[in-house]
Amino acid sequence: MSAYTLHEDPISANCYKIRLTAALLGIPLDRRAYDIRKGETRTPAFIRDVNANGRIPVLEIRDGGATRFLPESNAACWYLASRSALIPQDRFDQADCLRWMFFEQYSHEPNVATLRFWLAFVGEANLTPAQTAQIGAKRTGGEAALALMDEHLQARDWFAGTSVSLADIALYAYTHVADAGGFNLRDYPHVVRWLARVAGLPAYVPIG
Amino acid sequence: MSAYTLHEDPISANCYKIRLTAALLGIPLDRRAYDIRKGETRTPAFIRDVNANGRIPVLEIRDGGATRFLPESNAACWYLASRSALIPQDRFDQADCLRWMFFEQYSHEPNVATLRFWLAFVGEANLTPAQTAQIGAKRTGGEAALALMDEHLQARDWFAGTSVSLADIALYAYTHVADAGGFNLRDYPHVVRWLARVAGLPAYVPIG
Repeated sequence: MSAYTLHEDPISANCYKIRLTAALLGIPLDRRAYDIRKGETRTPAFIRDVNANGRIPVLEIRDGGATRFLPESNAACWYLASRSALIPQDRFDQADCLRWMFFEQYSHEPNVATLRFWLAFVGEANLTPAQTAQIGAKRTGGEAALALMDEHLQARDWFAGTSVSLADIALYAYTHVADAGGFNLRDYPHVVRWLARVAGLPAYVPIG
Repeated sequence: MSAYTLHEDPISANCYKIRLTAALLGIPLDRRAYDIRKGETRTPAFIRDVNANGRIPVLEIRDGGATRFLPESNAACWYLASRSALIPQDRFDQADCLRWMFFEQYSHEPNVATLRFWLAFVGEANLTPAQTAQIGAKRTGGEAALALMDEHLQARDWFAGTSVSLADIALYAYTHVADAGGFNLRDYPHVVRWLARVAGLPAYVPIG
């Protein structure tokens, strides 16, 4: 048993972020799968023992005698990457890395990831009327996020600082599968080249 | 002129987070106000010169000869609090601080802040049908976020580590004005006591 167990659903790219961070850093990680479509992270046992918020991913950390649970994908990546080159040490670059990680959770994931989940996993015919009413706004929001990323990458290879950081890992996760949510990545050529850059990193692992 | 200008709307508690962080740390901050209800952060000049994402807050940083712009409220707080006690240095506590900051942007702000803005500043009669259709889900999501906070605070004074951190500042911002969004804070007694703890910090400043 390694020092870590990732509580995850393999279809979730939020979970994949943590696997990719661990892989790039050579950190072994045990995996425990839940099916979010069957409500397996909303059971009383999961809420009591793993995450009161009823969500995956959660990183279980065994450190000496203590076992602790860390929810929120980007926080789990931060823990694993502590004192590594994936977190810039320069004061501005570190805050800028977090800037893109917060952008990812606020402006990117709720649009790009939600449309992928709704269209590729739930099915458009099975959405509630309130969900269907949000498709247009989420399409617009997702395209704005991808356009902002494309513009930022016009003159640089990586999102923050001068090398790959957690900002790239966080944004890669749902961007590289955005086509499943109906986004056309060919409209964002700098993003496409950056995706290839991430996928070419040594020790890269695919989603799944 | 100080080393910083905060581009803000004084009604925004995302902007207030940065002012409160600076105040607690004794950092002088110039302020430049925009009216988001008049679209003043969506003008071509703002998008070109301040933030391509068309949003406030943005922290303008003058460091030597360079002027740089840092969007995302929690990232700007991180920059200001760098090397201060508001960021825990323990590896787990630091990731846990970020866990609550990501929770704030993903599970709290889109519900608690949005309902406050819609109900107290836009007016329910002026919402679009798609917005009106989301009120119920945002009410449920906001109440779940407040309940999770209340449970977490049952046995502790602060969100991460053993003293006040950026996690408290990030969550305080929209929680302390949640009543304007129709949330009843008396349902969350541990949250109410924690709000008083934050408001009692030396050098505390109010929103506005």
